[in-house]
Amino acid sequence: MDIIYTLDIVGTFAFAISGALVAMKKQFDAFGVVIIAFVTATGGGMIRDVLINAHPITWIGDINYIWITLIGVAVTFLFRSKIAPLRKTMFLFDTIGISVFTLLGLEKGLAYDLHPFLALVMGMVSAVFGGVLRDVLTRKVPLIFKKEIYASACLAGGVTYLILANFKINENLHFIVSAAVIFIIRSIAVKYKLELPKVKIDVLGEPN
Amino acid sequence: MDIIYTLDIVGTFAFAISGALVAMKKQFDAFGVVIIAFVTATGGGMIRDVLINAHPITWIGDINYIWITLIGVAVTFLFRSKIAPLRKTMFLFDTIGISVFTLLGLEKGLAYDLHPFLALVMGMVSAVFGGVLRDVLTRKVPLIFKKEIYASACLAGGVTYLILANFKINENLHFIVSAAVIFIIRSIAVKYKLELPKVKIDVLGEPN
Amino acid sequence: MDIIYTLDIVGTFAFAISGALVAMKKQFDAFGVVIIAFVTATGGGMIRDVLINAHPITWIGDINYIWITLIGVAVTFLFRSKIAPLRKTMFLFDTIGISVFTLLGLEKGLAYDLHPFLALVMGMVSAVFGGVLRDVLTRKVPLIFKKEIYASACLAGGVTYLILANFKINENLHFIVSAAVIFIIRSIAVKYKLELPKVKIDVLGEPN
Repeated sequence: MDIIYTLDIVGTFAFAISGALVAMKKQFDAFGVVIIAFVTATGGGMIRDVLINAHPITWIGDINYIWITLIGVAVTFLFRSKIAPLRKTMFLFDTIGISVFTLLGLEKGLAYDLHPFLALVMGMVSAVFGGVLRDVLTRKVPLIFKKEIYASACLAGGVTYLILANFKINENLHFIVSAAVIFIIRSIAVKYKLELPKVKIDVLGEPN
Repeated sequence: MDIIYTLDIVGTFAFAISGALVAMKKQFDAFGVVIIAFVTATGGGMIRDVLINAHPITWIGDINYIWITLIGVAVTFLFRSKIAPLRKTMFLFDTIGISVFTLLGLEKGLAYDLHPFLALVMGMVSAVFGGVLRDVLTRKVPLIFKKEIYASACLAGGVTYLILANFKINENLHFIVSAAVIFIIRSIAVKYKLELPKVKIDVLGEPN
Repeated sequence: MDIIYTLDIVGTFAFAISGALVAMKKQFDAFGVVIIAFVTATGGGMIRDVLINAHPITWIGDINYIWITLIGVAVTFLFRSKIAPLRKTMFLFDTIGISVFTLLGLEKGLAYDLHPFLALVMGMVSAVFGGVLRDVLTRKVPLIFKKEIYASACLAGGVTYLILANFKINENLHFIVSAAVIFIIRSIAVKYKLELPKVKIDVLGEPN
């Protein structure tokens, strides 16, 4: 479990930096930056826990998430001028984050006796909705809704996890192989700018 | 109860289409479209269940809501070019949706021993907040806040339901008469473009 | 407790007016205005209660919050033309609101056995997130994220409360002294337009 907890910390840290960067770009003040960083880092897990009634929710049960967010904000503030050349590092951390969050969410769903398909949904909620909240609060169109491979990668890794669950393999290995699937798919997709075509609609007025 | 469950399915289906259409118009990718469709279809009931602590929340307790959403998205995708001439059908489905959701939410509130007035509020939350979440996530001003008759119709139908509860009438009839009130008020309002006048304020700077 | 409940009512009333004003300026219809007023007045406590699993949440457990919101909306409607000269009064009420909400949230967190630091966070959530929801639903950049002193004042008052908890002083006095700290800091900050400098970042493309 230590490896997984470490990866969880890395993911939280990466998401906090991602949130802090967006908030600083939008000229939010110090509190605004902290709130956006925190919501980005913990929002997915928070929504998941509220939906499946898993109390105490993650960051209330383990105060470390708050400290890691604050460290992430401090690091972002101190090294903000060096962030641009670090984009590959950031992408690395962020991709570790979604890989781990997807599987942790999926595992938590299974631990709460959800149907595997619903557990898979919870994995994706964990990985995706922190970023969605960040974008709603900073008034951007949620990125995730335009970058298919992001969620597709989470889905593929989650399915891998569920399939591997039928074999008796070491727990850490099980986790890490599935995480690697997410990590690799997303990395390839970004490197080669893979994206599925979007549906075109322009005949419509306001539906509903 | 079968009639009501059928109507619930019809409403969920209609709301999923409504969400998918907005997301497609905004050029969201496939996952974005599915998420918006799902949030539109189940968001109202989801918020209601979280607020009144009714776990498992609707779509976790009954996985059919996910399937219906996916079918709704597929149908929207396949028939998107024929949607424009189908606007009356869509309006029909959508209006069935809000009629049913209002009363199901109200009934659930009563089943959880809420004060009838709070149960009425929960009915309106169920009918309205799926659309509100859709609009927030797609960066539109929530439509509901500008189209009075939408919520007014829900309110009228909910009050009808509470009044009829004092008489001994068949449960399905009770439900359907109240739903009809919502359906008819909204249909008339849209047909004749009824809208209450809005308050004009322009003296103010930023309040708060 | 009577003094504190009275202050809670005053704060709720002030927040309801603040929400109603924003919604009226945005040309929302009557229902939209009521919903925004209600979300502004009760949103912070609602999010807090959902996160710490404190059911029934505030406004479900005490229907007065709904009545106060409706009265607040009615007052705003009736006196809207006189609101401009009343801005100092509004500021007064609003500042009472955040002072009281911060401490009520903090106390509730402690009552639910949260770590004092988490209870402090819950105090700030109570004071701040009603306004955040208002701004998200009306498509404004959340004000709180740009006006540092707002949240800083809540933080200072919350810390004062936690420090005073180590001394044996009268419960009401304890509450009111801490509330006064928030009230005074915010009043001074607004009077002298105090604001912390913001971080400048412009080298970045889209993070994440």
